[in-house]
Amino acid sequence: MNDSGAVLQHLESHFQDYLFELIEFASIPSVSTDPAFKAEMVRASGWVAARLERAGVPQVEIFKTAGHPVVFAQWLAAPEAPTILIYGHYDVQPPDPLERWHSAPFAPEVRLVDQEQRLYARGVSDDKGPMLIPILVAEAFAKTTGKPPINLKFLLEGEEEVGSQHLEAVVRENAARLGADFVLSADGAMWRAGVSSVNVSSRGLLSLEFRLIGAGKDLHSGRHGGGIQNPLSALAKLVSSLHDTEGRVAVAGFYDRVTELSSAEQGAIAAIPFSDAAYLESIGAASTFGEPGYGTLERQWTRPTLELNGIWGGYTGPGGKTVIPSQASAKISCRLVPDQQPDEILALVIKHLETHCPPGVRLEITSNGHGALPYAIPSDHPGLEVARRVLRQVDGREPLEARMGGTLPIAESFKRLLKLDMVFFSFSTGDEDFHAPNEFFRLERFKKGLEAWARYWLILGGQDT
Amino acid sequence: MNDSGAVLQHLESHFQDYLFELIEFASIPSVSTDPAFKAEMVRASGWVAARLERAGVPQVEIFKTAGHPVVFAQWLAAPEAPTILIYGHYDVQPPDPLERWHSAPFAPEVRLVDQEQRLYARGVSDDKGPMLIPILVAEAFAKTTGKPPINLKFLLEGEEEVGSQHLEAVVRENAARLGADFVLSADGAMWRAGVSSVNVSSRGLLSLEFRLIGAGKDLHSGRHGGGIQNPLSALAKLVSSLHDTEGRVAVAGFYDRVTELSSAEQGAIAAIPFSDAAYLESIGAASTFGEPGYGTLERQWTRPTLELNGIWGGYTGPGGKTVIPSQASAKISCRLVPDQQPDEILALVIKHLETHCPPGVRLEITSNGHGALPYAIPSDHPGLEVARRVLRQVDGREPLEARMGGTLPIAESFKRLLKLDMVFFSFSTGDEDFHAPNEFFRLERFKKGLEAWARYWLILGGQDT
Repeated sequence: MNDSGAVLQHLESHFQDYLFELIEFASIPSVSTDPAFKAEMVRASGWVAARLERAGVPQVEIFKTAGHPVVFAQWLAAPEAPTILIYGHYDVQPPDPLERWHSAPFAPEVRLVDQEQRLYARGVSDDKGPMLIPILVAEAFAKTTGKPPINLKFLLEGEEEVGSQHLEAVVRENAARLGADFVLSADGAMWRAGVSSVNVSSRGLLSLEFRLIGAGKDLHSGRHGGGIQNPLSALAKLVSSLHDTEGRVAVAGFYDRVTELSSAEQGAIAAIPFSDAAYLESIGAASTFGEPGYGTLERQWTRPTLELNGIWGGYTGPGGKTVIPSQASAKISCRLVPDQQPDEILALVIKHLETHCPPGVRLEITSNGHGALPYAIPSDHPGLEVARRVLRQVDGREPLEARMGGTLPIAESFKRLLKLDMVFFSFSTGDEDFHAPNEFFRLERFKKGLEAWARYWLILGGQDT
Repeated sequence: MNDSGAVLQHLESHFQDYLFELIEFASIPSVSTDPAFKAEMVRASGWVAARLERAGVPQVEIFKTAGHPVVFAQWLAAPEAPTILIYGHYDVQPPDPLERWHSAPFAPEVRLVDQEQRLYARGVSDDKGPMLIPILVAEAFAKTTGKPPINLKFLLEGEEEVGSQHLEAVVRENAARLGADFVLSADGAMWRAGVSSVNVSSRGLLSLEFRLIGAGKDLHSGRHGGGIQNPLSALAKLVSSLHDTEGRVAVAGFYDRVTELSSAEQGAIAAIPFSDAAYLESIGAASTFGEPGYGTLERQWTRPTLELNGIWGGYTGPGGKTVIPSQASAKISCRLVPDQQPDEILALVIKHLETHCPPGVRLEITSNGHGALPYAIPSDHPGLEVARRVLRQVDGREPLEARMGGTLPIAESFKRLLKLDMVFFSFSTGDEDFHAPNEFFRLERFKKGLEAWARYWLILGGQDT
C-alpha cells in the first residue's frame, strides 16, 4: 500500500471514533458572544490544544488574548514542500431560541433525516466538524506515514462569531511565525452537499446596536397614551426608513462604491444549479424578496444588505400589558461587497439614523463592531486549483465557482497583514442551519472532508493520488 | 362623641395597623395576566375574603369563574338608606422590567420621597391600597356604631388588568343580588394629590397581538440576507403605517365616530392646572407628541389612541447574532372615546394590518381581547354630588372635573347589565407609576381615603358630618 492508500484507509477505519470525538467537542457550549460562557470557551480551547497534541502535532500553544484564547500549532517536517496555515474556529453562535430545537443544542444527537445521517448540535457545521477534520488528518499521517507531506500551521480561534476581535492583534504579533504559502480554511461552508464548488468571495460585515429613549420611565398607556411619543412606534418608523418598499437599502450613499459584476461573473453564477422554488421550499418561505434587478443568488452573494437581527421593547411576555415603554432597541448588521468600506458604511448608517430619528425620542448608539471588509480570491490561485482537483476526485465532477453570502472577517486580515490568500475548504454546506435552531452536519460530508483534506495535502506535497 | 366622630377617630388611631395590613396584602404577587401566578391569585382572593369577614361584614362569598375568583360580600343593615355596590380589584400588573425597581415589587417598602411618605410595591396604588379602604371603613363602623349607615355590597375582582374577562358573566348571573343605587368605585385614580377632582369619563380599550411569519426557520443573515423578506423589517414597515408622522392614527375610519368636545367640556379641561413643562419633567421626557390640534390633556382624556405595547423578534441578548428570524411580533392596544365601538375598531385595525402587510411575510393575529367601551357619567349624578361634598370637606376646596385616560372595562358592563352609573372614588392619583416600575401609594392619601369613604357613607346615609 502506498502512502495515500494507508492514510485514506486509516481515516475510513476510524470514522466511528471521530464521530464520538466530534460529539464530545460539540457538547462544550463555547458561545463566544455571551460572557456567561467564558469558562466554557477556556475549556473548548483546552480541548482543541489537547487534541492537537494527541494527534502528534509537535508544537502546540495557546495564545491568550484580551478576549477568548487562540490555539496555535505547527508541524514543519517537510522542508521541500509548501506550508499552509490552517484556519478554523471553535466558538459557536448562541443557541437561542432554545424552544425551537428538537434536541438540546449541546447534547449532540445523530438522526436519520431525508435519508441522510446527520449530527445535530450547535456548532457542528459552523465550525467544529470542519475544524476537527485537519486535526484528524494530521493524526492519520502521524500514525501511518509518520508525518504530513507538507508543512502545517494551525490557527484556531474562539471569536469568529463575534468578528474575530482579537485575532488581528495575534496575527500581527506573530506574523513571522505564521508565514505560509496560503491559508487553507476549514471555515466557510460550501454551496451544497450534492454540488462540487469552490468559493471565490465572501461578503464583509458591520454591526450596530442602538436604542430610542422616550420618557425616563415606563408609562401607563391609558394615562399617558396620546401625549408623548411611543419609542416603539418611533423605532418602527426609523428602521422602516432604512429600506424602500421594494427592499433597496435607503441609506444615502450606501451603494456608491459597489462594483457591478462582469458578464463572466454573472455567467459563473448563472451556471450554479439554483431554483427559487426549491430554495423557498428548503427554508419554508413563500416568496423571495429583495433589491430589484438581481437574481436571488446575485443578491445573496454580490449585493450588499442591511438586515435587522433583533428588535425589542415593551412587554413581550404572556398576556397583555398596557404600557408605553421608556425605550426600544434594535440590532442591525450589514453585509458588504467590493469596494464598500465598513467604517464608511457604518458612518452612513449612523448618519441616516440621526437624520431620520422621529421627534420625541433620543437616539443612542449602544454598540458597534464586527467591521470586516469583503474578500475575493483570484480565480486561478494555485491553492484553488488543488481544491478543484481534489473535488473532481472525491465528487467525480467539475466544481462550480460559488460565493459566500456570509463573512470570514479574518480573510481580509490575513491578506492585509500576511499577504496570504485564503482558500475555503470547509465540508459543511450552506443548508445546514448554522446560526439557527437545529444546526446539523452531514456524516457523509464529515467522511468526505477527511478524505479530501488528506488528498489535498498529498497533492500539494507532490505525492499525486 | 357622635357617630362620625367615633368612626373618624377609630380610623385615625388604627392607621399604623392598616399600613401593615396593606403591606401584607401587597406582598402577594397577584399578577393576573401570567398563568404562573394562578395560585397567588387564589391566595389573594382568600386574603380579601378573610379580611372582609374579620371586618364584620356578615355575608362573604367567593365566586369561582373560568378565570380568577371574584370576592362578593354584603352588609344590608340600613333598610331606609341607599345601597352602594363597591367595586375594586385585587389583581396587579406584571412587575417587569424587574431591574428597574429600586426595591423588590412584592416586598413593600415605605420610603420618604419628595417629603412624602410613600409605600412602594406593585399594586399598592392600582388597586390594593384604594380597595382596602372600604373594607377598613366597614370595620370602623362595626367597631364603633355597630354597623354602616348605608347598605354595602362589595364586588372585588381579580381580572381588571386583563380586561375583566369573566366579571360580565358574574354580573349577569348575579344581577338580582347586585342591585344598588349606584357603583362606588375604589379603582380609577384621581387626578393629582394636591388637586381635588371627580372623574367624569374613562376611555375604552381594545387589544391585539399579531406576528409576521417569513421563512419556516431562523436563517443566517450572511447566507440568506438579500434574498428574502426579513420579518423584522416587515414588522417595522407595517406598524409604522399605523400612524402618520405627526402622530395621527392612520387606520381608515378610526376617527369616524369620535365626537368632538363641547366648549363647556373644553373649558372644564382648561380649568385643570396642567403645564406641559411640569408634566414632561415628571415623566422625564423631552417633548410632547401626538395628534395635532389638541392639548396634551385633551389628547390623553378625550382622543382615541393606538399604542404599541411591545414588539419583539430575532436575537435580543448580549452581543450580536447575525440572524434573520422567522417571525416578529407586536402587541397593540387602542384607547377609545365616545362613540367608538371596540369590535368595529378592532375590525378596522385588522383590516389595516391585512391591507398593509408587506410582501414576503404572512400575518397571523395571535390574540385579541380587552374590548371595553368608553364610559361617561352625567355631571349632575347624585353620587358625584356626594363625592364633591366630601372632597370639599377633606380637601377644603372645590373639586375640578377631570377625566381618565385609562379604562375601567366594567363601568360600561355595570351600566348595561345593571343600569348603574359608576362614581370613581379612588384615592390613588395618576402620578403613582402604576403599570410601571416603582409603583407607589402616598400614605397621606391612604389616610385621607379612609376619612373620605367614612364621610361619604355618613352623608349618603343622611348623617350629615
